[in-house]
Amino acid sequence: MIKSESGHLKIARPLASGGFSTNDGLRPYRLAAHPRTGGALTSTRPVRVSDTVSIGGGAITVIAGPCSVESAEMILSIAHSVKSMGAVMLRGGAFKPRTSPYSFNGLGPSALEFLENARSVSALPIVTEAMDTRQVEMVARTADMVQVGARNMQNFSLLEEVGRCGRPVLLKRGLSATITDLLLAAEHVMAAGNSDVVLCERGIRTFETSTRATLDVSAIPVLKEETHLPVIVDPSHAGGRSRLVLPLALASIAAGADGIMVEVHPDPEAALSDGDQSLTIEEFGELMRALEPVAAAVGRTM
Amino acid sequence: MIKSESGHLKIARPLASGGFSTNDGLRPYRLAAHPRTGGALTSTRPVRVSDTVSIGGGAITVIAGPCSVESAEMILSIAHSVKSMGAVMLRGGAFKPRTSPYSFNGLGPSALEFLENARSVSALPIVTEAMDTRQVEMVARTADMVQVGARNMQNFSLLEEVGRCGRPVLLKRGLSATITDLLLAAEHVMAAGNSDVVLCERGIRTFETSTRATLDVSAIPVLKEETHLPVIVDPSHAGGRSRLVLPLALASIAAGADGIMVEVHPDPEAALSDGDQSLTIEEFGELMRALEPVAAAVGRTM
Amino acid sequence: MIKSESGHLKIARPLASGGFSTNDGLRPYRLAAHPRTGGALTSTRPVRVSDTVSIGGGAITVIAGPCSVESAEMILSIAHSVKSMGAVMLRGGAFKPRTSPYSFNGLGPSALEFLENARSVSALPIVTEAMDTRQVEMVARTADMVQVGARNMQNFSLLEEVGRCGRPVLLKRGLSATITDLLLAAEHVMAAGNSDVVLCERGIRTFETSTRATLDVSAIPVLKEETHLPVIVDPSHAGGRSRLVLPLALASIAAGADGIMVEVHPDPEAALSDGDQSLTIEEFGELMRALEPVAAAVGRTM
Amino acid sequence: MIKSESGHLKIARPLASGGFSTNDGLRPYRLAAHPRTGGALTSTRPVRVSDTVSIGGGAITVIAGPCSVESAEMILSIAHSVKSMGAVMLRGGAFKPRTSPYSFNGLGPSALEFLENARSVSALPIVTEAMDTRQVEMVARTADMVQVGARNMQNFSLLEEVGRCGRPVLLKRGLSATITDLLLAAEHVMAAGNSDVVLCERGIRTFETSTRATLDVSAIPVLKEETHLPVIVDPSHAGGRSRLVLPLALASIAAGADGIMVEVHPDPEAALSDGDQSLTIEEFGELMRALEPVAAAVGRTM
Repeated sequence: MIKSESGHLKIARPLASGGFSTNDGLRPYRLAAHPRTGGALTSTRPVRVSDTVSIGGGAITVIAGPCSVESAEMILSIAHSVKSMGAVMLRGGAFKPRTSPYSFNGLGPSALEFLENARSVSALPIVTEAMDTRQVEMVARTADMVQVGARNMQNFSLLEEVGRCGRPVLLKRGLSATITDLLLAAEHVMAAGNSDVVLCERGIRTFETSTRATLDVSAIPVLKEETHLPVIVDPSHAGGRSRLVLPLALASIAAGADGIMVEVHPDPEAALSDGDQSLTIEEFGELMRALEPVAAAVGRTM
Repeated sequence: MIKSESGHLKIARPLASGGFSTNDGLRPYRLAAHPRTGGALTSTRPVRVSDTVSIGGGAITVIAGPCSVESAEMILSIAHSVKSMGAVMLRGGAFKPRTSPYSFNGLGPSALEFLENARSVSALPIVTEAMDTRQVEMVARTADMVQVGARNMQNFSLLEEVGRCGRPVLLKRGLSATITDLLLAAEHVMAAGNSDVVLCERGIRTFETSTRATLDVSAIPVLKEETHLPVIVDPSHAGGRSRLVLPLALASIAAGADGIMVEVHPDPEAALSDGDQSLTIEEFGELMRALEPVAAAVGRTM
Repeated sequence: MIKSESGHLKIARPLASGGFSTNDGLRPYRLAAHPRTGGALTSTRPVRVSDTVSIGGGAITVIAGPCSVESAEMILSIAHSVKSMGAVMLRGGAFKPRTSPYSFNGLGPSALEFLENARSVSALPIVTEAMDTRQVEMVARTADMVQVGARNMQNFSLLEEVGRCGRPVLLKRGLSATITDLLLAAEHVMAAGNSDVVLCERGIRTFETSTRATLDVSAIPVLKEETHLPVIVDPSHAGGRSRLVLPLALASIAAGADGIMVEVHPDPEAALSDGDQSLTIEEFGELMRALEPVAAAVGRTM
Repeated sequence: MIKSESGHLKIARPLASGGFSTNDGLRPYRLAAHPRTGGALTSTRPVRVSDTVSIGGGAITVIAGPCSVESAEMILSIAHSVKSMGAVMLRGGAFKPRTSPYSFNGLGPSALEFLENARSVSALPIVTEAMDTRQVEMVARTADMVQVGARNMQNFSLLEEVGRCGRPVLLKRGLSATITDLLLAAEHVMAAGNSDVVLCERGIRTFETSTRATLDVSAIPVLKEETHLPVIVDPSHAGGRSRLVLPLALASIAAGADGIMVEVHPDPEAALSDGDQSLTIEEFGELMRALEPVAAAVGRTM
């Protein structure tokens, strides 16, 4: 009997897709893989974010908020609105990775204060991104869940640092990351001591140009076969246009996702970032009403 | 006022994605594009396949059957089974495009006879593929809908020939076809005189190797924005593995597809082609039971 | 000892890239694969096109001409010009596959006449495309080499028909064809009885948008490892812009290609198709002067 | 007259590919773009790495060395060997980004010492990677040029930090980075105050599986059109197999690259990382002999 470094038994299993084994026939992600007891896959192990929120159980988790925190009032107002419509977590960027150095890159530490204030008033737990190993401690003081963005999915120093931060981690799939790459990135976090990782499919880069990225909806069931980690979807970044958010969100839940994270802005045309893909408050309400029957149809609650 | 060749008015409209206009600001697919009357998109125009089947109305169309017709008994038996579970059309290949010249490439004309027999007994209309301009007339004598496969999506001679065949056409998206390419392929069929085209998303080629292709679920809402043609999805070829068919089918319906086409085989391990992705009869029944509540959740019937 | 259909010995060999074997450990392309005698790969087997032109020997083959034959005078004039600069074959489209049904799609049979005339005057052998099984016989009467275009690379009926046409075949790689797919397409032609196949790399579809396609220059050495068939490159379609033709042509020859095929037009801005990527006569002369030292540097002649 | 932040004139120019402009018709990379004086593009501005090495002038720069520094003796021995064969810079990883947390990830600070020693003995300047903002200062004390790896190309915190490190930066293209993304990443470094950036094409991720990545050889001339920054190529990571390094290196130089960076190991099969793609010392010598005439053919020296 062989034990991995983490103490999990290494048990060979038939590989569905032929591409996932190590040389010894095992998954290369030892901690992220389903533990096997007998023949059946064990189910998703929920990740607890706060007293009120766990991701990966029977209930669909809806995370909503603006791309960037633009002011204290703005984030508070959005928190109230999305909570009243059923969101259970608040998103909002303080540190924003931007392709161009000349784009708005977030308010930084003051945005973290605004997020804390919004949480204390709304009671919504918060997820926000850390871009740099040196930011992790500060972000983790505020955030209930620390996000690693798609562009940093293979920033291994950052993965190790969030692996030591004491908070659940939301790990977004890189634009050209295979599913195996994503699971190995999660493994970096877990090998550093943090098993509370939530995976986020947000579209991959393909030749198709009518959408910002191509939502890989198949990744949801493939990940469910491979890992016990919860899987959520970000339809806002995948589609890149507000009109696509609703159908992509419904598709994701129907395919088995544990939740969605969507960008909401009171006035998308005035947004400092990602306005094209942000829902208005009204559109978010419409989305929530549409989600509920689809969630019920696949045996999930809101 | 400008009229296109087809008599549709050419009216400029704001472009959602920036990539679809001709030099004069219009969609390059004049016949496939939504006719515009005032501000709103008109809805999908259903394509009538038989007295009993129209694709693109309120009801979800489920097409099922084997990859290849293997014998008269086999196709008849599958027809009975899938009909009893709710399929409304029968698929089955007589002429099979195969990547290798040494693979089984279909029974040819005798398979067409077997399909005719299965239709006369089961009353299910039939869709089957024509690969060659010289086969179109023969295939169209049997088929209620003539399929153009993914590898032939830009075989323009074939598109023109099926444009003159007098049957509805099922046009599958090519592996590296953009949505614009797909619509222009439909335009080739329509410009030849046949406006009864049904589009089929079946996965695109990307770097991801855990699935046979990457189902582009976003293509469904994007196509609904662009065209009045019905859109169905083939989750069997997209995922390439039977376990992925159910979640991908649910995702497709949730995203707004008008139907699905799935491969079903009584004994997938013995199938002459595509065994890995074929559902058993039992699995097809399970799929149908799962589809119904999702269809209802998005306001569709079965 | 096992013999393949063609009489070549089937000998297992170590696989360089892990993705190419059949279940029995052999290449799935029996005829296209290098015959093996002892340990060494045999070299490229040249394909003879005419008394004066063989592709795949020590000399680099340069094929030049317009995208479409636009008139008798135009093709004759180009033939004279490119011949005087060192081209040994003439290209020119009579039947043009076009993404839109409303684009110019070639002059058809009269273009074949114009090509014949240009050949009889210039003595340059001709390559031109057949798009439809029903055109192959007519095209093969004129053409010294029959082209199968990228969009038809998996039009298996067409591959079989050109396999019986009695002329060498220029087979262009499809936009989303793997190298294995390309070799299996060649195998279709060869299995139909025609072993005179020349492969043409012309770019694959990727996420990069600054070029029309992404020239897969690595395909050249990979194909040289896998097959005895000659390999040429079409830098015009790969880059999609005339300024890229020269560097891509030089790169291709440096990487081991047996020739190039380039689009030349006396007045690219007035071209009926592919003007952006066509070289002027002067630019073609510049290309030929640049090619010669690079060819010499890798041990090839012009 | 408009001045950008950097003092360069902002002059509109015709865009070759349609995808590069900002809203005001200008390149979004102000510092990386060619300054324009009149109609002509200015040429590449060489980046000076040491007293003996500048990248981007008439001479081709060859950088060679192991993937990882494995011991003091090993790196010193390789330095001697590659220098004797014509390499002018030494590469070697101290901190290694690895997809799996269980793979060898470099010797860390001691490897930096070994590199310093190899430089003092061989007089070859050194390039090595920094993965983390917190490592930059330490790496910059040893390295003559600091590398940012492909996976960190959009780690914007790291880009800013190397922008302040006082050393030239070797910026590798990300696996799914467009050419515009690459130039904007360089712009991040330059906007932080460091204009000594060398770009490195190392292959992009596509559907093709016979190579580790797809070398985008077209990126070389496209970058030369867009930027004054020197461009080198890493054929080792692009092809992923030692047999492909030579043809890809020749292709790169023929297409206009300013240099190459190749992995060399005395015993590739025993290498702790990237053995498949490492050249032996003998193979490196063969490569150098093959490079010289190709460089000469395109007007470059070694």
